[in-house]
Amino acid sequence: MIQASVCTIGDEILIGQITDTNSAMIARALGAAGISVRRMVSIGDNREDILDTLRKELSLSDIVITTGGLGPTKDDITKGVLAELSGSNSYVEHEGQMEMVVKILSSRGLDILDINRAQAMVPDTCKVIVNRRGTAPIMVFPIGRSTLYSMPGVPFETEAALPDVVQDIVSRYPVSCIKHRNIMTYGLAESALSKKIASWEDSLPSDMHLAYLPNPLSGVKLRLSLVGDDSSRAETRLDGKIAELEAILGENIYSCEEESLARTIGKLLKSLGKTVSAAESCTGGEISHLFTSVAGASSWYLGSVTSYAISVKESVLGVPKRIIEEKGVVSAEVAEAMAAGVRKLTGSDYAVATTGLAGPGGDGVNPEGTVWIAVCSEKGTQSRKYNYSNDRLRNIERFSASALYFLLTFIKNEINH
Amino acid sequence: MIQASVCTIGDEILIGQITDTNSAMIARALGAAGISVRRMVSIGDNREDILDTLRKELSLSDIVITTGGLGPTKDDITKGVLAELSGSNSYVEHEGQMEMVVKILSSRGLDILDINRAQAMVPDTCKVIVNRRGTAPIMVFPIGRSTLYSMPGVPFETEAALPDVVQDIVSRYPVSCIKHRNIMTYGLAESALSKKIASWEDSLPSDMHLAYLPNPLSGVKLRLSLVGDDSSRAETRLDGKIAELEAILGENIYSCEEESLARTIGKLLKSLGKTVSAAESCTGGEISHLFTSVAGASSWYLGSVTSYAISVKESVLGVPKRIIEEKGVVSAEVAEAMAAGVRKLTGSDYAVATTGLAGPGGDGVNPEGTVWIAVCSEKGTQSRKYNYSNDRLRNIERFSASALYFLLTFIKNEINH
Repeated sequence: MIQASVCTIGDEILIGQITDTNSAMIARALGAAGISVRRMVSIGDNREDILDTLRKELSLSDIVITTGGLGPTKDDITKGVLAELSGSNSYVEHEGQMEMVVKILSSRGLDILDINRAQAMVPDTCKVIVNRRGTAPIMVFPIGRSTLYSMPGVPFETEAALPDVVQDIVSRYPVSCIKHRNIMTYGLAESALSKKIASWEDSLPSDMHLAYLPNPLSGVKLRLSLVGDDSSRAETRLDGKIAELEAILGENIYSCEEESLARTIGKLLKSLGKTVSAAESCTGGEISHLFTSVAGASSWYLGSVTSYAISVKESVLGVPKRIIEEKGVVSAEVAEAMAAGVRKLTGSDYAVATTGLAGPGGDGVNPEGTVWIAVCSEKGTQSRKYNYSNDRLRNIERFSASALYFLLTFIKNEINH
Repeated sequence: MIQASVCTIGDEILIGQITDTNSAMIARALGAAGISVRRMVSIGDNREDILDTLRKELSLSDIVITTGGLGPTKDDITKGVLAELSGSNSYVEHEGQMEMVVKILSSRGLDILDINRAQAMVPDTCKVIVNRRGTAPIMVFPIGRSTLYSMPGVPFETEAALPDVVQDIVSRYPVSCIKHRNIMTYGLAESALSKKIASWEDSLPSDMHLAYLPNPLSGVKLRLSLVGDDSSRAETRLDGKIAELEAILGENIYSCEEESLARTIGKLLKSLGKTVSAAESCTGGEISHLFTSVAGASSWYLGSVTSYAISVKESVLGVPKRIIEEKGVVSAEVAEAMAAGVRKLTGSDYAVATTGLAGPGGDGVNPEGTVWIAVCSEKGTQSRKYNYSNDRLRNIERFSASALYFLLTFIKNEINH
């Protein structure tokens, strides 16, 4: 199996100012193409450390991928060090990247400075893959029997360039055939899920591999990989195993495509010709953000009210003052009244509402991490209480994902009954 | 300066199943104590790779901190490898950790199995720091002139044990002083910012170091570090340099603390006793989410309306149908009417509104990436058009950050006039 090392470069990583998310993203993309990551290393913007580390990794791995240190400012030195490492004495301008530099800066109404132009100049020892989201090109250096890929450090840019980098690797090295299926689950923690499917997992043939990929916003994604079988039966074999899994997990599987809960809901609503709206308190706009992150959401999502203040719950959503006083803001009754209120206000078919305590601190009755979620339609209303125990931002994510999953199962049940 | 290497151990890191957050957390704790991290390495649960990597890091650094590979199951091998590396032939039971194992499992109502008891057995070459949140102890191995600390991989446990580990390091090594300051800027790209402060940057003394940390949601953060000066003048020296920078950058600096635009706005509003609300179209809830990500937002943030459908702009926010027909949805007039509408609806002092095209695709008049942003108060209204050229999610982030910065400068200007 082709082996890779990932090296992230930047002082900001070493002082812990940013958490390196590039390495995991790169590892997932390589793994999906049948390339295994052997080591990940983070080093500072320091010539000796970069040279020493890259020489060591090039001696160990077929592929070395670096990210970072390519900005236009003086503290970024990766390009110069790579020129030295690859024995280059001169730089050449890359036309495609220069066009991108001009396009990006012009669209922002910025002047194009010499330091911007310098971004499109590369050592003559490398091949360029154009960075379509930023000014620093991806540079490909063949060094000995290995290949070094220098990628930008901004995760948004790294992500966009990864498919091109993987394609370049596949064109240079013999990678084994690999097929993946993604199964999106929600409602079971990784350990509970693992226990529930233990005997199915044990029964997997030796050329199939299962990975658990948990995410607070979309549950646990299961990735089933089949390595080395390029026969026409390969797809059928994967289908068969997934059918078994669906029988075990039931509605905990919300999609067999790689997609978010919001996208799954959107596709379902679009197929039904129905719409949804949201009333948010503790989730503070996150549910609306998740809906509108889906392109084309305007065909099924009407809008939302974030009623952060109690006065807005009363005046905009029409939650009766009496209910708030008697039951408390964090209650089934308030969640249900919020859902009914926003459904009436927007004229949507479905509505979802949240009221809870993201933290820090509880309200004297409910601990931090408590949320009431309500969903409703013309036919009825349901509400449920959930408890989580994370920090504020993580609780907001968990609350929002739980609300989306609750809404999805509510809509599905309504269709089926 | 005392140098450290951080090694995270676990196959789940190398396949990208989890993002390593321990390294950054450890780096921040060490940095605060004046210990600099030179390298971070992630490796799998593999004897040869662990031995090879730890030997190399011990030769480079004074301190090596490992996390992970200490679980009770077969795939976790770190403890055995550390026994080998440190030349230990026998294990001893650590009484304090055994008490903790019994306490933790009993509190969860679990039986204590032999594999649990084995967690409190350690190589006789190490000193133990008790893990108060888990069953695997922290092991301290003096190896040559260096010291190796083996910590658990669960971030919740690592975090709790870090203060004890740092204290142990400080008791063994002379640590030097390091100070950081963060300066938050918005409205200048990294390259333009760098040009504007080039001569200031060149004038920095050799013991001060500047780093640029760009982020789409909070602009470019500048980090000024001072190494090795523990005199009473150190803070004054940093203050002096930052005062110079403030004179150059003016209102492009929105805070000299490490904080988001939303938090800066919140602090300002709270000090003024004022409130804000939002009307969002293309940003779809992201502005509201940014506001409510700040703990205590309820004292200055009332709520928002996401008017994704045109009908909601009309019925909930009261935007006149005539304006939408004459000027188009993406226009100054609609943005201003949305801001005025949500301000009236919620009774807030300030309001901010967005209407635009996050993409994919334009509307025939405006290209994808166009947004009109309006801000208003009792005293007046302002609106501005912005253009970006990213993908949908990144455009939503840029639109939202621009809206927050526009709101902040609007409030500041109102106070000053």
